[in-house]
Amino acid sequence: MSETVLNDHVEHASDPAAGDRARALDAHVFHSWSVQGQTNPFAIAGGLGTTVWDHDGREYLDFSSQLVNTNIGHQHPKVVAGIKAQADILTTVAPATTNLVRGEAAAAILAHAPGFQSVFFTNGGADANENAIRMARLHTGRDKVVSHYRSYHGNTGAAVVATGDWRRVPNEYARGHVHAFGPFPYRSEFWSQSVEQECERALQHMRRVIEAEGPESVAAILVESIPGTAGVIVPPPGYLAGLRELADRFGCMLILDEVMAGFGRTGAWFAHDDHDVRADLITFAKGVNSGYVPIGGVIVSPEIHETFSGRVFPGGLTYSGHPLAAASVVATLDAMASEGIVDNARRIGADVLGPGLAELAAKHPLIGEVRGVGVFWALDLVTDPGTREPVGAPVIGALKGALLQRGLLPFAADNRIHVVPPCVVTDDEAQQALAIYDEAFAEVGASL
Amino acid sequence: MSETVLNDHVEHASDPAAGDRARALDAHVFHSWSVQGQTNPFAIAGGLGTTVWDHDGREYLDFSSQLVNTNIGHQHPKVVAGIKAQADILTTVAPATTNLVRGEAAAAILAHAPGFQSVFFTNGGADANENAIRMARLHTGRDKVVSHYRSYHGNTGAAVVATGDWRRVPNEYARGHVHAFGPFPYRSEFWSQSVEQECERALQHMRRVIEAEGPESVAAILVESIPGTAGVIVPPPGYLAGLRELADRFGCMLILDEVMAGFGRTGAWFAHDDHDVRADLITFAKGVNSGYVPIGGVIVSPEIHETFSGRVFPGGLTYSGHPLAAASVVATLDAMASEGIVDNARRIGADVLGPGLAELAAKHPLIGEVRGVGVFWALDLVTDPGTREPVGAPVIGALKGALLQRGLLPFAADNRIHVVPPCVVTDDEAQQALAIYDEAFAEVGASL
Ligand SMILES: Cc1ncc(COP(=O)(O)O)c(C=O)c1O
Ligand SMILES: Cc1ncc(COP(=O)(O)O)c(C=O)c1O
Repeated sequence: MSETVLNDHVEHASDPAAGDRARALDAHVFHSWSVQGQTNPFAIAGGLGTTVWDHDGREYLDFSSQLVNTNIGHQHPKVVAGIKAQADILTTVAPATTNLVRGEAAAAILAHAPGFQSVFFTNGGADANENAIRMARLHTGRDKVVSHYRSYHGNTGAAVVATGDWRRVPNEYARGHVHAFGPFPYRSEFWSQSVEQECERALQHMRRVIEAEGPESVAAILVESIPGTAGVIVPPPGYLAGLRELADRFGCMLILDEVMAGFGRTGAWFAHDDHDVRADLITFAKGVNSGYVPIGGVIVSPEIHETFSGRVFPGGLTYSGHPLAAASVVATLDAMASEGIVDNARRIGADVLGPGLAELAAKHPLIGEVRGVGVFWALDLVTDPGTREPVGAPVIGALKGALLQRGLLPFAADNRIHVVPPCVVTDDEAQQALAIYDEAFAEVGASL
Repeated sequence: MSETVLNDHVEHASDPAAGDRARALDAHVFHSWSVQGQTNPFAIAGGLGTTVWDHDGREYLDFSSQLVNTNIGHQHPKVVAGIKAQADILTTVAPATTNLVRGEAAAAILAHAPGFQSVFFTNGGADANENAIRMARLHTGRDKVVSHYRSYHGNTGAAVVATGDWRRVPNEYARGHVHAFGPFPYRSEFWSQSVEQECERALQHMRRVIEAEGPESVAAILVESIPGTAGVIVPPPGYLAGLRELADRFGCMLILDEVMAGFGRTGAWFAHDDHDVRADLITFAKGVNSGYVPIGGVIVSPEIHETFSGRVFPGGLTYSGHPLAAASVVATLDAMASEGIVDNARRIGADVLGPGLAELAAKHPLIGEVRGVGVFWALDLVTDPGTREPVGAPVIGALKGALLQRGLLPFAADNRIHVVPPCVVTDDEAQQALAIYDEAFAEVGASL
């Protein structure tokens, strides 16, 4: 990172009054997925790479990547420069006309998705899944979408009902959704004894659900390539390829949700690149531009593109292919490629985080399983390694506190701590973080 | 506008190769609401205020405001500066933490919505409506949402089924939606003879629909304060206040969709400010920051906010309260207030566009009705003023061609031309536009 930017960082270092002002104004903000008035008073004032700082100038290692979106790290100077340059040219334009930087962004994305035809841009992950579902339904002339119980696909009408976790339940106002269990060796739903058996049985279960629903009614299988919020559940070798076979056998589409797993997180451009599988539609958001400007989208196969060359595609949005967002995509993908950021994620996972987290698990009985790849890891925490009983909220709360206090911004979900730094994380930062996790687990483990 | 920016504008004036490149790359873009491969080759290279220019340096008066979103005009220097300044500080941050500029944006919006408590931020208009519907359902414990047939509320699961127009039909996968006719004196569904009668009958119709659906099942009435894409159908005096009475009588919420009508378009901060009505939830996007960075949201009443102080709100999105978008909101609302931009829209409507368009209607029999307020107008085009038979697509196509050729970017929908310039449009530009419309109507009228 350049000297200038680091100077900037120091400049922003301390302004406690701004923190107080932020907390006072927060009363006007209605917050996502929470009880109002109980939200986090912690305010991030600025960031650079893997580091963020608060208004008191206190620094933190960001091992959350916020909502697992800042793959390129905070405030990457090339992406910031790309946004500022486009801001001077043209921030917004209607989707129906032609736009240069929008076309460049589509081409930059397709460069990593060989065999695909086009990109439909949305504002985020939820509407990416909405539009992929729409395409699959109209392309097949069928209704049902089968997805995993352990999944999250977004908060809008269809996406939230495609979602399998608790967030679906109060929002069940869409029809045409069916859920199946996915493979999860550590917490099998299939009484399996090995990873191979888990894969085989999960595929059999999926096949039986589709057969029982009526294959002629199923438009798509929609799964996260690696279920993320559900616990970084890397699918066993052969599972995604098995879903492809099922989709081919039953004539339905395979939609891979790469919103969280895509664009470097696993050390590949797409998480499914490691799984010998071809999707019909790929949905993305987050890592494509690290969320610097809201954008998401659907990568479309030639066959599905062709369907909508003969009929109107009945979906769209005001900011589809937004120039400012598109410019940030172009700058991000450029910087990720030229700076070897995806390779860095892979290497950090293989050389530092993978072995380091395994060492922690060997040391701390709280850690029942370590799962992951690249910079996409989960620690599945248990009260007892034998029963694999998940720890409760107080343990997670204590860990979050212990980590924050030591200068690490954690990501927690259910009974898990997810270890999800930006793809630009250095060996040094990863080692520092491992030491902090070690201390926090020691402290909380001792208190139980 | 400052000298520097105007110089910039000249600099960008001509680069035909960029236009060719944009058209070539457009093959990679999957387009909204259209048959692929038939999209508009017209590429906007840059803009300033009411003017845009293509890559050949040809200038156009933008009387579309793109998708009726650039209320502050193109590339307003204060908003561009606000975006660039925030880009240097912090582009993105997780919604669950506290953030200064997000709080400032919420406060800036609430300053125009007295009596409201908080703002839930989304990425655009569709997810604003999704979340308003979610709030209304959970607050009331009821399911159904009643909206108008002549409406558009967005492309996601619930929003597109709340929509009344053709875009709903291929997307009908949500339950709990009911549609009613709204007031439309020029094309009454109620055999009414006067505006007063139309209002009365529309309210009676709405009441009967709710009674027949079962009032205890109705969570919300959701309407655009002024139906926009449906034809700028300004409601008769008393209609919105009448909906409020129905909502109170039946214990349901009134959601006003101000996505297109809000933030200056009508010459008021909200279109419903002129209609003596209180909403429970207001949805917005577009004009709040002219779409310079994707953002939308829901303005929440104290009662509904209170409901979610006792229970989790089960909705959210990665970019809720995005700092870069929030900074653009703060800069936009600031500039709109300090430069009298909302008042300008009102004045231009009353003094120039209103009388000027009425004159055109008197002259050109194609124009059956002129409707609107501020910088929000529709020309309802007919083959015969007596039968009010809508003109067909060829007439609209010919008009679009004639307007573009004369340097005016038009907005067309069904049998209508919408006259929707930015709120910053000058008297001079409005007069130029009126002259262009006059010529185009003369040419197309003569050819019929
Ligand atoms: C796998 C996956 N899909 C979709 C989404 C929804 O994305 P957004 O929050 O941008 O709507 C998320 C968000 O966390 C996600 O993790
Ligand atoms: C009244 C209204 N509501 C909602 C929307 C949807 O907004 P978005 O396209 O940002 O999803 C629109 C878009 O035109 C609109 O006009």
